[in-house]
Amino acid sequence: MKEAVEIEQPLSSTQRAVVVEKGESSRSRAYVAPGLNRGISIIDLVLRLVALVGTLGSAIAMGTTNETLPFFTQFIQFRAEYNDLPSFTFFVIANSVVCTYLVLSIPLAIVHVIRSSARHSRLILIFFDTAMLALLTAGASAAAAIVYLAHKGNVRANWFAICQQFNSFCERISGSLIGSFAAIVVMILLIFLSSFALVRH
Amino acid sequence: MKEAVEIEQPLSSTQRAVVVEKGESSRSRAYVAPGLNRGISIIDLVLRLVALVGTLGSAIAMGTTNETLPFFTQFIQFRAEYNDLPSFTFFVIANSVVCTYLVLSIPLAIVHVIRSSARHSRLILIFFDTAMLALLTAGASAAAAIVYLAHKGNVRANWFAICQQFNSFCERISGSLIGSFAAIVVMILLIFLSSFALVRH
Repeated sequence: MKEAVEIEQPLSSTQRAVVVEKGESSRSRAYVAPGLNRGISIIDLVLRLVALVGTLGSAIAMGTTNETLPFFTQFIQFRAEYNDLPSFTFFVIANSVVCTYLVLSIPLAIVHVIRSSARHSRLILIFFDTAMLALLTAGASAAAAIVYLAHKGNVRANWFAICQQFNSFCERISGSLIGSFAAIVVMILLIFLSSFALVRH
Repeated sequence: MKEAVEIEQPLSSTQRAVVVEKGESSRSRAYVAPGLNRGISIIDLVLRLVALVGTLGSAIAMGTTNETLPFFTQFIQFRAEYNDLPSFTFFVIANSVVCTYLVLSIPLAIVHVIRSSARHSRLILIFFDTAMLALLTAGASAAAAIVYLAHKGNVRANWFAICQQFNSFCERISGSLIGSFAAIVVMILLIFLSSFALVRH
């Protein structure tokens, strides 16, 4: 990778020289100063931190949710925990995995700020970002489907709304989705920014 | 776009010339013949068709699912349709939207086969592919969460497994997920391929 990056630099200046030689206007095809790609890399780093906080918050908020009602009967257990429902367990796992990935990707993002002309490492990030986007979306969406069911129930399937009993449990699990969905939007932006940085070489 | 594409060609050959001049081995940094990017574009087109068939099949399979049991009581309605559950409606909508997008993206994919050095149009495709990947994953995952619940039920929430009554309904909705999940994998590959084509310029 280092070798490739170092070869890249003289090529970029050659390219720019060729463009100038051809009298090409800077408007129609901007061969970038390294500064712009550095700006993109810094935004990339900041967005990674935002997504990191979002997924970490979601995982913790969901993972620590439980509620025991102050009364009970013989027939119904009045205790709710996030891992009663497999979708919520998946949500916590997906968020934790993505959060770990984001932590691991931050050193590479810092390398991109320093060596803003790196290309192959951006490609690697795009691939993993895409896979992690899919994982995170799957977790958030499965949890959202169950949260919706908990709130509204379903008359046709005879599933009733457990939120009528477990108020604070339901508020907590609904809230924990926010960080995850914010992280999804941020990861779409991350993929777009990395591709944009690739195009501008 | 056309202008950008036509400027691209002489730059590529200049780059290659510079690399040769520097005595750079072709192994460590392969400046590509247009043929390789054309190959990538053809694979891209084929994968788009595969994803198109997957999402279309899923949308139709789910959208036409209903089952009426040959007996009924006063209390329970023995009829199941996909739109009894909002997650399944979302699944059908998400698959239809992605399917429509894929149809619309095919002309652009064909343009990429012909003009394999196009870059900005690839960037546009990456952006929309990513957004559509998120939408498709959300739909498939929400539906999968409900399908799981229909199969297994949940003792803690007192939601019972409706699949015990609606066998053929459940088989159909489970099967319709396959096309969607296959399309998710294909779309991850599509994003990676487009980024790969960008890197190789």
